[in-house]
Amino acid sequence: MFKIKNIITISDYITIINIILGMLAILFHDFRFIYVAIVFDALDGYIARKTNTVSDFGAQLDSLCDVVSFGVAPAYLLYFYFENTLTLITSLVFLICGTLRLARFGILDVKYFVGLPIPAGALILSVFCQLFLRYSKDLGNIVGMDVNNLILSLLAVLVGLIMISDIKYPKYPNKIALIIFGISLILSLVGVFEVLFICAIGYVLYGILKMDIEDS
Amino acid sequence: MFKIKNIITISDYITIINIILGMLAILFHDFRFIYVAIVFDALDGYIARKTNTVSDFGAQLDSLCDVVSFGVAPAYLLYFYFENTLTLITSLVFLICGTLRLARFGILDVKYFVGLPIPAGALILSVFCQLFLRYSKDLGNIVGMDVNNLILSLLAVLVGLIMISDIKYPKYPNKIALIIFGISLILSLVGVFEVLFICAIGYVLYGILKMDIEDS
Repeated sequence: MFKIKNIITISDYITIINIILGMLAILFHDFRFIYVAIVFDALDGYIARKTNTVSDFGAQLDSLCDVVSFGVAPAYLLYFYFENTLTLITSLVFLICGTLRLARFGILDVKYFVGLPIPAGALILSVFCQLFLRYSKDLGNIVGMDVNNLILSLLAVLVGLIMISDIKYPKYPNKIALIIFGISLILSLVGVFEVLFICAIGYVLYGILKMDIEDS
Repeated sequence: MFKIKNIITISDYITIINIILGMLAILFHDFRFIYVAIVFDALDGYIARKTNTVSDFGAQLDSLCDVVSFGVAPAYLLYFYFENTLTLITSLVFLICGTLRLARFGILDVKYFVGLPIPAGALILSVFCQLFLRYSKDLGNIVGMDVNNLILSLLAVLVGLIMISDIKYPKYPNKIALIIFGISLILSLVGVFEVLFICAIGYVLYGILKMDIEDS
């Protein structure tokens, strides 16, 4: 009756936690669930490799959960907190680019990421939104559009384009980078997301500036 | 810089319309976008086959868009309109089942669908929600839970389980069924969704009662 349970592995359960967190970010309008989802997204791949349970099913499931947690959730929150015709359009652009990025990832088999990975895209958009919610002042309008919304919208499109670009990003970051990222993630959960902001910007620029990753 | 554009085909653009509609259902809290998304979901596969552009990329993209339009959107709307601890849990169950269903679909290659297809699952949950919004009366509480929420929650879990079950559904419906479905879909867009309700129930029961589809 439910043969599907025979193909679900331990790492798939962790992937399911990822999508639950993404959905909670949407339902409770809280960016922090996205940050925690990033941890679980990294964890499922790690555990699948360690337990030798890497599977096509797991890869499919992973992409499906990623589009929710790192595509729909940040796009939804951008529109939710900065409701506007412009953010409506640009949140859709971000989601479409993220989805195209994931579909391409599903068919490529290379040693590096092609285009900014969608969790990083979600992270940078989310952190920017949080910074704007905390610090932004009324900057007035340009051609009838609120300047804050305009900046965030441009960012969403820019991050979207970097995701579907051919810019190469390394697949497995080194340990020091991971530790710094972990600390900044924990800080962001208690409300200090400025460090995470710097990490995210650093990662995006790293891919753009470091063009010398070897082809596989 | 953007080599991805070389692999996007005409049918992929239709798939992208599908995810836009799903996201609009979420952003504007409107079930009708889900119904229109079902049409585009059927259309992209048809056009891909007709134009001979069936691809792995297209299949990946299709699943990613489906999880948004038929997984996240109905789950979100269930919670949005019937906000409650119970609907929170059952909307997550629905989403998880739908996602598992899509991941399995991505790795199976059979002549029939295994488990209720997620667009049908989304349809039945959405139509039920709309019916409850229109007709439901205060039915009181059972063990401290609102009876309307309880029924919808049970339905969400039941539909979820049928999606991940081994029940077989035919892949290509016959023309008469398609015409009836088309008419009932149009009616639902102008507010008459009772016919669509009967269609959806009929399809679910069809799979459960007609167990004799041959194995491939």
